[in-house]
Amino acid sequence: MNPLDPGEFRRQGHMVVDFLAKYYENIEKYPVLSQVEPGYLSKRLPSSAPQDEEPMEAILDDVHQHIFPGLTHWQSPNFFAYYQTNTSTAAILGEMLCAGFNVAGFNWVSSPAATELESLVMDWLGKMLDLPRPFLPFGNGGGVIEGNTSEAIICTLTAARDRVLRKLGHNSIAKLVVYGSDQTNCSFQKAARVVGIDPRNFRALKMTRSTLFGLSPDSLEKAIRLDINAGLIPLYLCATVGTTSCAAVDPLEPLCKVASKFSMWIHVDAAYAGASCICPEYRKFINGVEFADSFSFNAHKWLLTPLDCCCLWVKDPNALVKSLSTDPEYLKNEATESKQVIDYADWQLSLSRRFRALKLWLVLRSHGVQNLRSHIKNHCRLAKLFEELVEEDPQFEVVFPRNFALVCFRIHPSGVAGMLNAQLLHAINASGRVFMSHTTVGGVYVLRFAVGATLVTEKHVIMAWKVVQEHANSLLSMPASEQHSA
Amino acid sequence: MNPLDPGEFRRQGHMVVDFLAKYYENIEKYPVLSQVEPGYLSKRLPSSAPQDEEPMEAILDDVHQHIFPGLTHWQSPNFFAYYQTNTSTAAILGEMLCAGFNVAGFNWVSSPAATELESLVMDWLGKMLDLPRPFLPFGNGGGVIEGNTSEAIICTLTAARDRVLRKLGHNSIAKLVVYGSDQTNCSFQKAARVVGIDPRNFRALKMTRSTLFGLSPDSLEKAIRLDINAGLIPLYLCATVGTTSCAAVDPLEPLCKVASKFSMWIHVDAAYAGASCICPEYRKFINGVEFADSFSFNAHKWLLTPLDCCCLWVKDPNALVKSLSTDPEYLKNEATESKQVIDYADWQLSLSRRFRALKLWLVLRSHGVQNLRSHIKNHCRLAKLFEELVEEDPQFEVVFPRNFALVCFRIHPSGVAGMLNAQLLHAINASGRVFMSHTTVGGVYVLRFAVGATLVTEKHVIMAWKVVQEHANSLLSMPASEQHSA
Repeated sequence: MNPLDPGEFRRQGHMVVDFLAKYYENIEKYPVLSQVEPGYLSKRLPSSAPQDEEPMEAILDDVHQHIFPGLTHWQSPNFFAYYQTNTSTAAILGEMLCAGFNVAGFNWVSSPAATELESLVMDWLGKMLDLPRPFLPFGNGGGVIEGNTSEAIICTLTAARDRVLRKLGHNSIAKLVVYGSDQTNCSFQKAARVVGIDPRNFRALKMTRSTLFGLSPDSLEKAIRLDINAGLIPLYLCATVGTTSCAAVDPLEPLCKVASKFSMWIHVDAAYAGASCICPEYRKFINGVEFADSFSFNAHKWLLTPLDCCCLWVKDPNALVKSLSTDPEYLKNEATESKQVIDYADWQLSLSRRFRALKLWLVLRSHGVQNLRSHIKNHCRLAKLFEELVEEDPQFEVVFPRNFALVCFRIHPSGVAGMLNAQLLHAINASGRVFMSHTTVGGVYVLRFAVGATLVTEKHVIMAWKVVQEHANSLLSMPASEQHSA
Repeated sequence: MNPLDPGEFRRQGHMVVDFLAKYYENIEKYPVLSQVEPGYLSKRLPSSAPQDEEPMEAILDDVHQHIFPGLTHWQSPNFFAYYQTNTSTAAILGEMLCAGFNVAGFNWVSSPAATELESLVMDWLGKMLDLPRPFLPFGNGGGVIEGNTSEAIICTLTAARDRVLRKLGHNSIAKLVVYGSDQTNCSFQKAARVVGIDPRNFRALKMTRSTLFGLSPDSLEKAIRLDINAGLIPLYLCATVGTTSCAAVDPLEPLCKVASKFSMWIHVDAAYAGASCICPEYRKFINGVEFADSFSFNAHKWLLTPLDCCCLWVKDPNALVKSLSTDPEYLKNEATESKQVIDYADWQLSLSRRFRALKLWLVLRSHGVQNLRSHIKNHCRLAKLFEELVEEDPQFEVVFPRNFALVCFRIHPSGVAGMLNAQLLHAINASGRVFMSHTTVGGVYVLRFAVGATLVTEKHVIMAWKVVQEHANSLLSMPASEQHSA
C-alpha cells in the first residue's frame, strides 16, 4: 500500500474536484438548513471502522447519500444565517496545497516559506486595511494568522495579564478585571474564563438602543472606577466593530481614551466587519484603532477564505512572545538564535501550525484588491436592497440601522404577539428554501438576514424576501388562537 | 466575478491536483531541509497585494519558483526530523471536502453531519485503540477532535481547575500545582501558563536514565507531599506516552495510583505514540489509561492525516462543558435545548470549528484498520533496521532503547569531543539529502532519526545511514584541531 501514490492521488483528486464542482452546480437543490433528526447518522453508518480498504468511489457515494442530508449548506446562495463563512476556488486550492505540503511551521527553520509568506500576506492585508504603522513590521508591530477569534483573545489576554502579573506578582490574578459590552461575542467571556480571570470580574456592560448598542465610554469609565475603588485592577478592554448579534459598532476612539488612562490592553475585535474595512468607505468604522494594542478580524467570514483564518495584528509582538514562547532543546536552531526570524509558535497557543498563509495569498492574488472590494460592496448593496423591501412592507420593520450587510427585522409588533417572529423564523427555515437566524436586541426578538454567501445574487435576495412574506402572510391569516402568544 | 464558479473550480482544481501529483513524483529532487536565508521571500515577492486578479497559472508558477525553495519537505521520504506529520491522498481529499463545504459546526444544528460524523469516527478510533469503556459514549465519556495537544491540555486543565475552584473559591487559583516530568512536551508548560497556573507551581520533575526518562511515581508522590505541606493544592498530572525528545514512556498505572490519591485530574498525552496503539503489540504502552481522566493523541502525526487533528477523549465531557460552554441568544435552538445533541463548541476553545472529521473518516475507510496497522508496523520495522545499522558500526552508539519508530544515536564518545555530533548533524542537514534533528538526553547531545514519512521505504533508510556514515567519516578524518571541541 502507498497512501500517497502520485497516480492514485491524481485519479482520486480529479474525482473529488468533479464531485465538489457538481456540488456547487446543484447546491440550490438541497434544503439550506439540514432537516435531519438528532442521531440520524449512527443509524446509517457502521459502528466500527472497516478492517479493509474501501474504494474512494464508495466513500464519495456515502458522502452524497449520508453526509449531504446532515449538512447545513453554508455555501448555498440561500444561506443568510449567523455570519457567513464564505469560500472560493482560490482558497480551496490553497487548502489543498496546505494539506499536500503539510509542513508544521512552528518555527522558521521548520519551513521558512510558511513563516515568511505569513508575514508577507499579513503585511499586504494590513496595508489593505490601512492599519496604523505601529501594527506593521516597519513600525515594530506584526501580524499573525490565528485559528479563530477565541485564540486571538486568549493570546493577547494572556500577554496583557502577564505584563501586569510580572509587576504585581501572581497572587494579583484574582483581582484582574476585563471589560466589554453585553453585545461582545461570547468568545470573550470564554477566553477570560480560560486565562483564569475570576468570573465575577468579567464585565459585560449593559448597552441600550440609546447608543445603538455600542459600548458607552461613560459606562466603561464608571465601571472601571467602581472596580478600582473596590481594590480590583482593570486589565483588558475588548471593543467590537460589528457585533455578532446586530453588527453594532463600539466607538473606538473615546473608548481607547478611557482605557488608556488606566494602562489597560485594548483589543479591537472586528471578526465579521473587519473585512469590509478594505473598502475606503467602510474604513471609518475602525477609526481609533491607532490607540489600541491589538486588532483582529476573520478572513474566514467575509474574505472568501474558508475556516480557519483569524488575522491578528499587535503593536508589541514581544508581549506575546514573553508569555507564549517555549525553548525546548529539540527545537533549538541557529536561525532562532540569530534573532533574525519569527517563530510563530511563540505568537499562538499551540506548537504545530498549518500553512494557512497559502490560502490567503491565493485569495489576494487570484482576485486582487479591487475585486475583493467589489465582493464586499456587492453584499452591502444586496443587504440594502433587502432592507428596502422590508421597509416598503407595512407589516414589517427594520429593527436596527444597518452598518454592513446584516439586516435585523421583524413583523411589526402592532397588534401581534412577540412569539410570532419566532414562529415565522421556524416556518421559513423548515421550508429548507432559505436559512436565517435570530437574536434579541434590547429584549426584542428579531430575525437576522446576513448577506455573505459567495454565490448570492440579487435573485436570491428577492426570493428570500418572498419566502419571508409568504410565511408571514400565512401566519398572520391564521386565527389568533392558533398563533402562540407571548 | 464569481469566485466559486463551478467551471473555473473544475479547471483550476484539476490543475492543482496535477501540480501536487507532480510534486510527489519529484519530491526527492528537492533539498529536504530548506537552504534559504532569513528574509529570502520578501526579496522575491511584491510588498503589496495586486490591485487586479492574477491567473492561477502564474500563482502556481510562483509557488514553484519562490515557495518551494523555502519549504522544508515534510512529505519527503528523506525527512527523519522531529516527529513526522504524515499525510495521505484520502486525508487531502478530506481537507478538500472540508474547505469545499466549509461549514462552521459550532453546534449540532449548524451542520448535524459535522457533529455526528465526529462522534462516530472518534468512537471508531476509540475502539481501534481499545480505550476503556468510560472514555466512549456508551460509558458516558466521549471523544472530540481538537486542533492540537496544546488545546487538548488547555481545555482539560481549565475543566480540572474550575472543578477545584468551584469548591474552594477563585482566590485559590494561585495555589494550584501541575505536574509532569522534564521530558513532558513544552506545550504543557505553555498551557499551564495560559490557564493562570503560577509559573512557580509548574513541576517538571527531573528524570534520569535510571527510569529510562519515564516519570517516577515516587518522585511524583514526594513532590506532591512537599507541595501539600507548603499549603499548595495538587491539581493535574500530565503523563506522556512517547515523549517528544526520546519517545520515553511514563508508567501510567503507578502514576495514576499516586495522582488519584490526591484527587488530581490525570491527562495522558500520547501525541506521537498514541497512533501505534492501534496495533495490539503496542497497546501495552497505554495500559493504565483506565485510571486517567483524559487521553489524547495526534492523528496528524502518524495516522496519515494532515494538520490539524488531535483526538481527545474524556471520561466526563460535562466537566469540559461546565467550563467552556456559552449560551448566547443568537445560537439558541431547539436541538440544543432538547439535550439530545452534542454542541462541540462547548468541548473546545473556540466557537467556530472546521469539519475535521471528514479527513479522519476518509483515512479510516480508505485504508481500513489492517492497512493502518501495517503502516505503523512498517515504520517501526524500518526504525529497527536503522538501529541495527547504527549498532553494527563501532563508531556509533544507540543512546536510548527504541520504543517506537525513533532512534536516538550518536558518534560514540570514546576519544572524540561532544561537539562532533552537532557538527555531524549540521553537515548531514546542509547536504539537503536527508533531514534529522537533535535533542539532549540526560545532558548528552544525540541525533534523532524518526521514521514516519508516508513515502519512506527501506531504500531511504539505508541511504540515510550512508549519508550519516559519509559525513561522520569525513569529520573523523579531519585533524583534531579542525574539529570543534566541547
